[in-house]
Amino acid sequence: MSAKRILIVGGVAGGASAAARARRLSEEARIIVFERGPHVSFANCGLPYHVGGEIPEREELLLQTPASLKARFDLDVRVRTEVLRIDRERRIVTARAEDTGAEYEEAYDELILSPGASPLIPRIPGIERAGHFSVRNVPDADRIMAWIETTGARRAVVAGGGYIGLEMAEQLRHRGLEVSVVEAMPQVMAMLDPEMAAWLHQELRGNGVDLHLNDPVAAFEPPASTETAAASTVVLRSGHRLPADIVILGLGVKPEVELARAAGLEIGERGGIRVNESLQTNDPHIWAVGDAIEVRDFVTGGWSLVPLAGPANRQGRLVADNLLGQPATYAGTLGTGVVRLFGLTAGATGANAKTLARAGMAFETLHLHPSSHAGYYPGAQPIALKVLYAPDSGRLLGVQAVGRDGVDKRLDVFATALKAGMTMDDLADLELAYAPPFGSAKDPVNLAGMAAQNVRRGLVRTAQWDEIARLDPARQLLLDVRSVEEFQSGAIPGSLHIPLPELRARVGEVPSDKEIIVHCQSGQRSYFACRFLNQRGYRTRNLTGSYRTWKSAREG
Amino acid sequence: MSAKRILIVGGVAGGASAAARARRLSEEARIIVFERGPHVSFANCGLPYHVGGEIPEREELLLQTPASLKARFDLDVRVRTEVLRIDRERRIVTARAEDTGAEYEEAYDELILSPGASPLIPRIPGIERAGHFSVRNVPDADRIMAWIETTGARRAVVAGGGYIGLEMAEQLRHRGLEVSVVEAMPQVMAMLDPEMAAWLHQELRGNGVDLHLNDPVAAFEPPASTETAAASTVVLRSGHRLPADIVILGLGVKPEVELARAAGLEIGERGGIRVNESLQTNDPHIWAVGDAIEVRDFVTGGWSLVPLAGPANRQGRLVADNLLGQPATYAGTLGTGVVRLFGLTAGATGANAKTLARAGMAFETLHLHPSSHAGYYPGAQPIALKVLYAPDSGRLLGVQAVGRDGVDKRLDVFATALKAGMTMDDLADLELAYAPPFGSAKDPVNLAGMAAQNVRRGLVRTAQWDEIARLDPARQLLLDVRSVEEFQSGAIPGSLHIPLPELRARVGEVPSDKEIIVHCQSGQRSYFACRFLNQRGYRTRNLTGSYRTWKSAREG
Repeated sequence: MSAKRILIVGGVAGGASAAARARRLSEEARIIVFERGPHVSFANCGLPYHVGGEIPEREELLLQTPASLKARFDLDVRVRTEVLRIDRERRIVTARAEDTGAEYEEAYDELILSPGASPLIPRIPGIERAGHFSVRNVPDADRIMAWIETTGARRAVVAGGGYIGLEMAEQLRHRGLEVSVVEAMPQVMAMLDPEMAAWLHQELRGNGVDLHLNDPVAAFEPPASTETAAASTVVLRSGHRLPADIVILGLGVKPEVELARAAGLEIGERGGIRVNESLQTNDPHIWAVGDAIEVRDFVTGGWSLVPLAGPANRQGRLVADNLLGQPATYAGTLGTGVVRLFGLTAGATGANAKTLARAGMAFETLHLHPSSHAGYYPGAQPIALKVLYAPDSGRLLGVQAVGRDGVDKRLDVFATALKAGMTMDDLADLELAYAPPFGSAKDPVNLAGMAAQNVRRGLVRTAQWDEIARLDPARQLLLDVRSVEEFQSGAIPGSLHIPLPELRARVGEVPSDKEIIVHCQSGQRSYFACRFLNQRGYRTRNLTGSYRTWKSAREG
Repeated sequence: MSAKRILIVGGVAGGASAAARARRLSEEARIIVFERGPHVSFANCGLPYHVGGEIPEREELLLQTPASLKARFDLDVRVRTEVLRIDRERRIVTARAEDTGAEYEEAYDELILSPGASPLIPRIPGIERAGHFSVRNVPDADRIMAWIETTGARRAVVAGGGYIGLEMAEQLRHRGLEVSVVEAMPQVMAMLDPEMAAWLHQELRGNGVDLHLNDPVAAFEPPASTETAAASTVVLRSGHRLPADIVILGLGVKPEVELARAAGLEIGERGGIRVNESLQTNDPHIWAVGDAIEVRDFVTGGWSLVPLAGPANRQGRLVADNLLGQPATYAGTLGTGVVRLFGLTAGATGANAKTLARAGMAFETLHLHPSSHAGYYPGAQPIALKVLYAPDSGRLLGVQAVGRDGVDKRLDVFATALKAGMTMDDLADLELAYAPPFGSAKDPVNLAGMAAQNVRRGLVRTAQWDEIARLDPARQLLLDVRSVEEFQSGAIPGSLHIPLPELRARVGEVPSDKEIIVHCQSGQRSYFACRFLNQRGYRTRNLTGSYRTWKSAREG
């Protein structure tokens, strides 16, 4: 292995992974890491939990230091050092040390860019005032905690309902603050389709969070004389005024591409650094990884921005492999993500309906609410699953899951199946670990596969929750086959109610000249009813996800 | 669909699944289920938890009744009814109703055998006496609970350390009994290799269970005059005498094949009913599913007995599909299994080393101890992973996992990867759901894949824990690169100790004429050390699983 000079811009996730891997592959390489901030390799995903007190020790977040990386990997890590320019012709970067202001040059054989993404700070009046914080690094967390303590902040407004916004909302509630979440879109968590995000809305409200959807911030006003607020009065487009002692800005991130752009590197259609399958830019000696790059969406094949730690870490390792004689290619990103929100866990992998529609890809949708483990063992909780697959091939395209138990496990199984290109038949046939505390003889993943098989084999047709409001009573009838107790505790208006065990005896009450949309609580008993009715000559469709999905979507 | 007469022998897992699926596919079919016991479709996997009180209500175990199955699926379910004979020529079975003693015939077009497996009751003197119980059905649980209450049992002996034995040992401890587990083999839980079962041994002892390994029961003697024991004095081969107020027999199961054998159906080499890929016996009108059949091992391709609920349920559904115009084939069984034992979860999927060696298949072994989630987030626990893969193709062959958190999730991801035929490269590249409470940016599954890549690419060679006792000090040296604190709290005798951060400076202390076997706590830091030393010209091997695996194997 030649004694290459490898320079790395950015010392968190992707950059730190690339540096450590490069050293393991080559003792001779000269490896220099430039990091603008004061820390390398810190746990950025842990920041909300430090603010909330779940991770009490700040040191826990600082996984490595320049000194530890020097000792362990002989890395030359320069914090508080910004790379100002890249001279591609001479293969030289110009860096500036923040502490001294000194500028100097370093030559490279190979350059790895891992600059990350910076918080979006839209031009909203007042956004730059004190008490308004984004959450990107450890000093941000320090400042937020200091502000809360020194001002005795009671009321927080979180602008933006993405990962960081929701995690901060949860953690600020844990600290005892009153929290409002303000979101410009009609839903939080864009990775979820609206009826799945609805579960999060209910969880936020159920935990005392004041939720404002479809209502962007118009201004962060100085508190009026009649208001007290340590930070701003947050004024929404609707006119709502929310006095805030602290404002958290979780309005998304944008790739940091200024250095790359100024060097003439190609920037993609989504605003990220464009790389090839080897994660190489259009300059063969410059590579890029992490939140700053565009990646191929594994399902749609389109370019995508996926600012997540997992892909960044693997990309860093892969680039080091490519630089040092272990060639590998990056297969694209599923966008697997998960968030904990109070008692709920919510996540997604692969494409959602919005993405597929945008990409013009055909898909079938199934909703299920299987138990997290055997129903007869204490503590089982329903998991709301939305499963999307290709109608022709039956290939899995994407999954969303929300629930109180076992959600992350099913997301990981689905993410593995997606990566393997599995079909719904394959899911039906998976052999997962079953004992009563952990699962069921037919796991939720199996049930999703079996439900799709039933559709694909023509045993049942599905109806979707958003059709219910548009049914034509002259041609269509809603049939509810739940128990009397279930029906009495809430029902879809206009439903004919015949409990499943009575259906065989009372089938004469079902009109034969209408399409029958059958539902139960989750969609299983109504499937049984559909099968019975179909064989008696009825035209039926099973309301997928049934009452649970309809109710959540309506109340969310 | 023709109005077939479908008879099913056995109304639990496989039989019940077949019956319900058959009805969904055909309203016209006449479906009769014969069940020898008093219950159909009961939760046999829940029995230990009912005995232990975790599932307080007996009714929770009775998922369906003949009446509910009649109402829901128009099934003719006959409990307490044994099928005595099959007349294949006339396609007729003879059944006997236990309550009346009446024998009668029923004709079939298709016959499904789901008789299950019965507990092994070896010819040990005294085994038939009162107070000795196997755990197969609800009446067994009733009798065990009644015996404990009426005798005031304090001391239990569990004979056999398989699934049922361990679950019963845990649950009887929960009830406050003193529990001994007696196992003829040197380890419990045959699905695990010995160094992985060692974790269970420690957990049993740590929870006050008196564990006797490699020491089969010689006799269940009537208590001597100097002994009190409501059931037996259990005498082991070693001479140990264990007075027992109750004895639980968990000595394994054997397929119930008498009916099939008497009918001239083919019985396989492992003693189960032999079926083809469609789960059809050598009589085209007789099908068989569940614990009574032999299945193809998915990894080795050999015939295997896998008495587990998940496969049984899917087999039942598949046979109904095959009978009723939805042809499908069974791809073999991974044997994915999991058990909770006090605070531990342990399981396996695919082949273990014993199985692969028996099948003559080459394999590489990796041990890892990754954190269940991000180390900086509270509650992370190490997961002991043993991963087996094919040296040539890199294909995953099997996994064993033991730990206190996140074990069932990783088992399911590995089981999915196995089914997909994934390689270790594929595992390295999986994109799993990461947020600090759930995982790490590099999940344990990714780390297993990456560790294998390092071996396959020639970056590191491995040593196994069981080589340590056989090292030749003249040619080999053990190097411990852990911290001083770790080293002082226990070390492998004879190790040279140089903490990793000091290794670059102190490399001169490492002899260059010996093979260096490097270890740390889990194998990661020692891998870093191997990479450094290899590039300095040393011959090294990394002790896979390192101190943790060595120590557990030794103490287990």
